[in-house]
Amino acid sequence: MDERIGAFFRPRSVAVVGASSNPEKLGGVILRQLASGFKGEVYAVNPRYDRIDGIPCYRSVGDIPGRVDLAVIAVRAELTPRLVEECGEAGVMGAIVIAGGFSEVGRRDLEEELAASARRSGVRLLGPNCMGVYAPSTGLDTLFTPSNLLPRPASGNVAVLTQSGSFGGIAMAMMAREGIGMSYFVSYGNRADVDEADLIDYLAVDPETRVIAVYLEGLADGRRFMESVARVGSEKPVLVFKAGTTEAGRRAAASHTGSLAGSDLVYEGALRQVGAIRARTTEEFLDLGKALSTQPPSHGPNVGVITNGGGYGVVAVDSLVRAGLRVPPVGGELRARLSRELPPFYPIGNPIDLTGNSTADQYERAVRAFMEDELYHALMVIPLFSVPALDPRETVDVLLSASEDYRKPMVVVSVDVTAEVSSQLGRLERGGIPVYGTPERAAVALAALHRRARASRPWPP
Amino acid sequence: MDERIGAFFRPRSVAVVGASSNPEKLGGVILRQLASGFKGEVYAVNPRYDRIDGIPCYRSVGDIPGRVDLAVIAVRAELTPRLVEECGEAGVMGAIVIAGGFSEVGRRDLEEELAASARRSGVRLLGPNCMGVYAPSTGLDTLFTPSNLLPRPASGNVAVLTQSGSFGGIAMAMMAREGIGMSYFVSYGNRADVDEADLIDYLAVDPETRVIAVYLEGLADGRRFMESVARVGSEKPVLVFKAGTTEAGRRAAASHTGSLAGSDLVYEGALRQVGAIRARTTEEFLDLGKALSTQPPSHGPNVGVITNGGGYGVVAVDSLVRAGLRVPPVGGELRARLSRELPPFYPIGNPIDLTGNSTADQYERAVRAFMEDELYHALMVIPLFSVPALDPRETVDVLLSASEDYRKPMVVVSVDVTAEVSSQLGRLERGGIPVYGTPERAAVALAALHRRARASRPWPP
Repeated sequence: MDERIGAFFRPRSVAVVGASSNPEKLGGVILRQLASGFKGEVYAVNPRYDRIDGIPCYRSVGDIPGRVDLAVIAVRAELTPRLVEECGEAGVMGAIVIAGGFSEVGRRDLEEELAASARRSGVRLLGPNCMGVYAPSTGLDTLFTPSNLLPRPASGNVAVLTQSGSFGGIAMAMMAREGIGMSYFVSYGNRADVDEADLIDYLAVDPETRVIAVYLEGLADGRRFMESVARVGSEKPVLVFKAGTTEAGRRAAASHTGSLAGSDLVYEGALRQVGAIRARTTEEFLDLGKALSTQPPSHGPNVGVITNGGGYGVVAVDSLVRAGLRVPPVGGELRARLSRELPPFYPIGNPIDLTGNSTADQYERAVRAFMEDELYHALMVIPLFSVPALDPRETVDVLLSASEDYRKPMVVVSVDVTAEVSSQLGRLERGGIPVYGTPERAAVALAALHRRARASRPWPP
Repeated sequence: MDERIGAFFRPRSVAVVGASSNPEKLGGVILRQLASGFKGEVYAVNPRYDRIDGIPCYRSVGDIPGRVDLAVIAVRAELTPRLVEECGEAGVMGAIVIAGGFSEVGRRDLEEELAASARRSGVRLLGPNCMGVYAPSTGLDTLFTPSNLLPRPASGNVAVLTQSGSFGGIAMAMMAREGIGMSYFVSYGNRADVDEADLIDYLAVDPETRVIAVYLEGLADGRRFMESVARVGSEKPVLVFKAGTTEAGRRAAASHTGSLAGSDLVYEGALRQVGAIRARTTEEFLDLGKALSTQPPSHGPNVGVITNGGGYGVVAVDSLVRAGLRVPPVGGELRARLSRELPPFYPIGNPIDLTGNSTADQYERAVRAFMEDELYHALMVIPLFSVPALDPRETVDVLLSASEDYRKPMVVVSVDVTAEVSSQLGRLERGGIPVYGTPERAAVALAALHRRARASRPWPP
């Protein structure tokens, strides 16, 4: 692995080239963000100023007295090749080029010139036509959309790599809203130099990252990418959302980033072979990320469904079977135990319906009984809190404690019908049990946890 | 149509049989709710009281001096056949039997006795094993789950008919949260007498209802149901969510309501033939309901996509094609108009990418240009409000006004990234433009609007 790639993730010092005192300009937004949040040295570079907002401003990167790990270049396209070269001469390891105006608008020549400058001068280059990096644990934030317009997720263990800034931005806003924590966000744009494989190789050994989630339109070097995903192995799932899966989508991708999106069947086969987990929709990209970042793999397809809503249990069963999982009936021993531990006349089965009389204690008994039965590999728990005797806080307590006592995955389906329920579901999620609004979404998440357990096949075969 | 069915939807007077002063009991919750909200006469029936909370309480329905349209019978199963008979003698048109303990637990005999009492005494019967009816416009509310535990949606034009109380409750809570208005909610349970067909026949001519949304596990009389759906015709869409589509789901349904769920292929063919629109997931049940209740049909498959996020546009195109729609390229005339009306160098196409410089004015120009081009039958608009120049209020203004000026469906994809955006998206929805969190959900909604336009084939063929 190229050690210079680390400069994009954990730089000790950052220079903003094209820094501005104008908060409406890219170089103004980025400088302010870094100055206010980054836990390292920040320098401004712009020959027109001596200081910006109290930060010392230098004529060029070479004039900065300290060592610079990362340069964020926020000037127009034509000026970037020369500035990257200056970075190289100053010993900068990595440069992020934010500007568009390269291959995506037909200026492949300028992009090649930029890449050549980077190669010649020994700088690794992220972009151009990208947003760069957000890393909550160090406050590194080169995103030109300020956080009052695009909320940033808290620190966590999901890394997002995105070819598209707009998709990445949406994913980030949704993660912030749903409370999914992030280790790094990297928008890499046209990938004139650093590509997905470089980034994945770094994240594969990064201790902060548990899930690598990638949005792709197309790949420049498919083999390199697949080898890199295969090297990550099954310990750290790689979640891939591939856009341009239809002919019309591929045309749109071609006119957007100039990507050759490639046949979806080829992607499907290759991604499966290297053990990647595929997200088919924007929602799945978030939903699966949440499950994979918090729950252990599911070492088999058999799911136990515990609910106090009979009809909703039927929907859950359909969803699980459609997601490729199984809902095996309750066997003799488990049946005897449940009959013993639950009130008489409760219908015992899978799903088990705890009825309108359900309590937190009954949920605990049912959850532990299914957890301890070897037939079941995972649980879907569907508490409907509109039942008076089912206290949300107590129910969340028993689910959190059961989840700690067993190594089987558990996901919860619930709707935040009231403020009290909403706050308790938040506790559940912060405790590492993912909550989904519908059984269908939870079923696809459980299927991904099962897929993850099967993804340990070595590659190349 | 049997006029007595109207008693379930628009009664002038309601008696609660088994009324209680105990707010923990069914007959207590239901009486309180009706007393506080129902715009009509409310009577209590219970031989043990003279008054409950100030409401006159009678020994039997026959003792009530005024006319009673609807009786809500909130006593245990064994007592219900005799009470239904008393209702008939007193001239009550409809009775709702809340209690379970009938065919769903193997007491088919008791259910038949109940149904026979109703037939003999001329009362139409809803239930047993049901929640009954909620009608926001009149305050009729027989649901035994109080609204502090299960929020009720506001008045609107979507009627929900549900065999499962738990699914219905979830759907209702989700509608309340998403601001989808409801004309009626009817939980009909074991349908010993009144069935889906009776209810659909009433709603077909009900002026308050624009969409009839049905959750089914199985049908007792499939032919009657299908004929009833076919009679509704294309003016008022019938949205059907069928649970028990898998073998395991059918087994779960059989143990839950005793329903024979039947082969999904048979349902699929029959529902298609009668012009019903099928929701495949819980989310679709809500999402399609929202689109069908607010937007006109889409008279063709061609969708124009307008966004300021290129990558997200690619995802939108994939979603539309996968939903069975088309995203045709921009023709010469439209291209010339867009080039003339938008800043130079904007990439003109479908999707059209209004870039990071987008403004509300540019959205207006693009939306009106696509609306006025006959090639396109519907629009998906995807404003990403993280762009500084794109004012959420102004953007919502131009979308609302464009939507009023044309008869083409429009749906919006957006995430409420900030409180300001969230409040403006609320304005958009109250103005009748449905907003979805992802392009995939919006695409399925547009496909339903297209399906609706094709659903006017007469039946039987």
